[in-house]
Amino acid sequence: MVAVGLEGLRLIASYKNIHMQVLRYPEKASWEIICRRPVMDLPSLETSVEKILQEVSEKGDQALKEFTLKFDNVIVNDLEVSPGEMDEALKLIPSDLKNAILLAKQNVEKFHSAQPEQIRIIETMPGIRCWRKSVAIEKVGLYIPGGTAPLFSTLLMLAIPAVIAGCREIVICSPPGKDGKLHPAILYAAHLTGITRIFKLGGVQAIAAMTFGTHSVPRVFKIFGPGNQYVTCAKQLAQRYGVAIDMPAGPSEVGVFADDTADPAFVAADLLSQAEHGPDSQVFFVCSSEQVLENVQQQLAIQLGLLPRRNFAAKSLENSTLVLVNNEQEAMELLNEYAPEHLILSCKNASALAELVVNAGSVFIGNYSPESVGDYASGTNHTLPTNGHARAYSGVSVDSFVKKITFQQLTPEGLKNIGPSVELMAAAEGLQGHKNAVSIRLAQVSLDENI
Amino acid sequence: MVAVGLEGLRLIASYKNIHMQVLRYPEKASWEIICRRPVMDLPSLETSVEKILQEVSEKGDQALKEFTLKFDNVIVNDLEVSPGEMDEALKLIPSDLKNAILLAKQNVEKFHSAQPEQIRIIETMPGIRCWRKSVAIEKVGLYIPGGTAPLFSTLLMLAIPAVIAGCREIVICSPPGKDGKLHPAILYAAHLTGITRIFKLGGVQAIAAMTFGTHSVPRVFKIFGPGNQYVTCAKQLAQRYGVAIDMPAGPSEVGVFADDTADPAFVAADLLSQAEHGPDSQVFFVCSSEQVLENVQQQLAIQLGLLPRRNFAAKSLENSTLVLVNNEQEAMELLNEYAPEHLILSCKNASALAELVVNAGSVFIGNYSPESVGDYASGTNHTLPTNGHARAYSGVSVDSFVKKITFQQLTPEGLKNIGPSVELMAAAEGLQGHKNAVSIRLAQVSLDENI
Repeated sequence: MVAVGLEGLRLIASYKNIHMQVLRYPEKASWEIICRRPVMDLPSLETSVEKILQEVSEKGDQALKEFTLKFDNVIVNDLEVSPGEMDEALKLIPSDLKNAILLAKQNVEKFHSAQPEQIRIIETMPGIRCWRKSVAIEKVGLYIPGGTAPLFSTLLMLAIPAVIAGCREIVICSPPGKDGKLHPAILYAAHLTGITRIFKLGGVQAIAAMTFGTHSVPRVFKIFGPGNQYVTCAKQLAQRYGVAIDMPAGPSEVGVFADDTADPAFVAADLLSQAEHGPDSQVFFVCSSEQVLENVQQQLAIQLGLLPRRNFAAKSLENSTLVLVNNEQEAMELLNEYAPEHLILSCKNASALAELVVNAGSVFIGNYSPESVGDYASGTNHTLPTNGHARAYSGVSVDSFVKKITFQQLTPEGLKNIGPSVELMAAAEGLQGHKNAVSIRLAQVSLDENI
Repeated sequence: MVAVGLEGLRLIASYKNIHMQVLRYPEKASWEIICRRPVMDLPSLETSVEKILQEVSEKGDQALKEFTLKFDNVIVNDLEVSPGEMDEALKLIPSDLKNAILLAKQNVEKFHSAQPEQIRIIETMPGIRCWRKSVAIEKVGLYIPGGTAPLFSTLLMLAIPAVIAGCREIVICSPPGKDGKLHPAILYAAHLTGITRIFKLGGVQAIAAMTFGTHSVPRVFKIFGPGNQYVTCAKQLAQRYGVAIDMPAGPSEVGVFADDTADPAFVAADLLSQAEHGPDSQVFFVCSSEQVLENVQQQLAIQLGLLPRRNFAAKSLENSTLVLVNNEQEAMELLNEYAPEHLILSCKNASALAELVVNAGSVFIGNYSPESVGDYASGTNHTLPTNGHARAYSGVSVDSFVKKITFQQLTPEGLKNIGPSVELMAAAEGLQGHKNAVSIRLAQVSLDENI
């Protein structure tokens, strides 16, 4: 164990002071309850959020500026970031951070560049050629939250696949700071991806602007990105106005499985990296070793004391669940039931167990694959389904920025091959018009052949 | 032209009797209005639909039976189709229809079997391996509407990709007829796909059952399939309870472009095959030839009189739009703005114009590719985005039944390569815990190397 080697480490808190729920060998019947997330009460926000949407829809830019003053406490005259602001920001980033962001960009680009699907023409019958083609969504909006951290990494994660997909118009909205500006690192990340339409606009008003369009902000067809409860609610309501969204959102979460080969200091660091996101973050720790569980708790207490965001993390740990299970098989079953956004496998058979994953957003295999590397730089996307949605949703990828349109082309011969079957089925479904569209053509083919 | 060759054709209606909106060379400024769909007033249904959801959630099977009696006017004792019922149904299908459905099944299977993505491991940096893997959604529900036509084709379109994806539990719900049974062709199609869990259950109560689960009907993670306004509303509300849905629904629609090489009789047959779906179906006909437009109208009048569902079709045509444009370039721009569910290109340069398609669900190229063949049997899926949603959504495919989970595995060497950059970025985002998860491991790597 290396915890004592962590620079600046001085033991402060006893782990007895952290309150965490530890469940010892729970019955399967209780798993559903164990895996439940806190319910987000979005409906209660709907009225106030809908009001903001309506105001932006009616008053456009004026409403955007009023809400920015009201919610962000800042007067913004020009909503769009100017080339001058961009130039200024680029000068403010230290070169080592620039290089780090560039590295992240390159890896994310490399991973996502392998995703676009090539066209394959399938001849289902002689004379019947069918294929599908990925076509970029023309206009997309990327929401980058402000708040307690300048999430330039989220910008990379959304902008890079949008650019690879070939979206024609990519719009970024992010709330301005107290100085009315965006964080230079956010602007640098945008600059790296080549996106130029960036708006100092956050919260519900940003979602509203991209949904309806205003004089300054273009309307888009799909909105991406995380946000607080209000932003989440706004994205849901925006769908009523025809806009698509990336996925339903919820607090970030990690599931970790550790056996007796895990390093408790590593595991604790991973749990805390999740817990520091916010007081509603979810940590779900499954362990097959009593000793490791004990040591992880001890390490949590030690490492927590060193965190600048320890208040968030401590609060988050209080809502977290530590579960002792009998073996790795049971661990994987429980974790599949939980369906975590991130899943870390810190155990002997990590690669083999990864094959058993059914429900998760992104999986980190082995002791040297912390979630942090995927959050920033390894190449995979960090915009992932939370709140159990990993059962049915995928994370953001190039797929999220395209439609897969199907095409087909029949020769007269192809229509002769398939036509009679279509006529029969259409008639059986009671759809004579569908049948006629075939019959009228078959009659022509027959005429042509007899000339 | 072949219209006179269509069997049983006797001219009945003058086309002057069909009321259709014809727009001659409209200005671009008016396109947005031209392309607007009628607004579906789903919010007004929400209260009554939510009430049904709640009752099913609380009372389970009992509520299902009560609602089936109330809405379908039939008493169903066993909600699930028994093996005996299945056997009986199989005997009722004529063998030529069986063969036709089998042909459709084979083509749809062939087309969709090419869709699953193979795993490709990307080494983004030395020692950092990332990949994604398609994993089937474990439990899915397929809704097959009843009503005016037994849509066994929809069953094939949903069940085949679900089976190819490898979904473990596939549940079908479809409303019983007056006799309390499902149409034999629906059961035959289910039988062909190997699905055995079929419920005689329709409407909001079916969506509710699959959302919450009851004693008889399993809960699922994602619900697929078209339906009337109530079903559509129920699917939207179900999302609040954590269920995913295939896509937002709306009335079916077709966009057609014809130039002077088009056969007006074919075009009219295609428009009518869409119009017969129901009075709210949308037909959007774009034409670059005054003469062809005139002839298509004439053919519409002739062919309409022959349709059993001519009342639906006539009503639908009244809401339809026929637009004269100056050339094929303008036609494609207008059709991309409209974003039709189905797009038929009946024109000289059909293949070249297909390359210009940006927004459409499925494209039918040339004079011998009627929508009907794709609706039933050519291989492509007929569950497609309507209502302008083709701007951001794809049709159903194997993708719809999987999650693409990302994986990563780093060696200690890989972590050394990327770790310092991650530490810098985490610190810049103010997330010390994220940094620690890397630092604590790098310290260990360093220790190990110095032993």
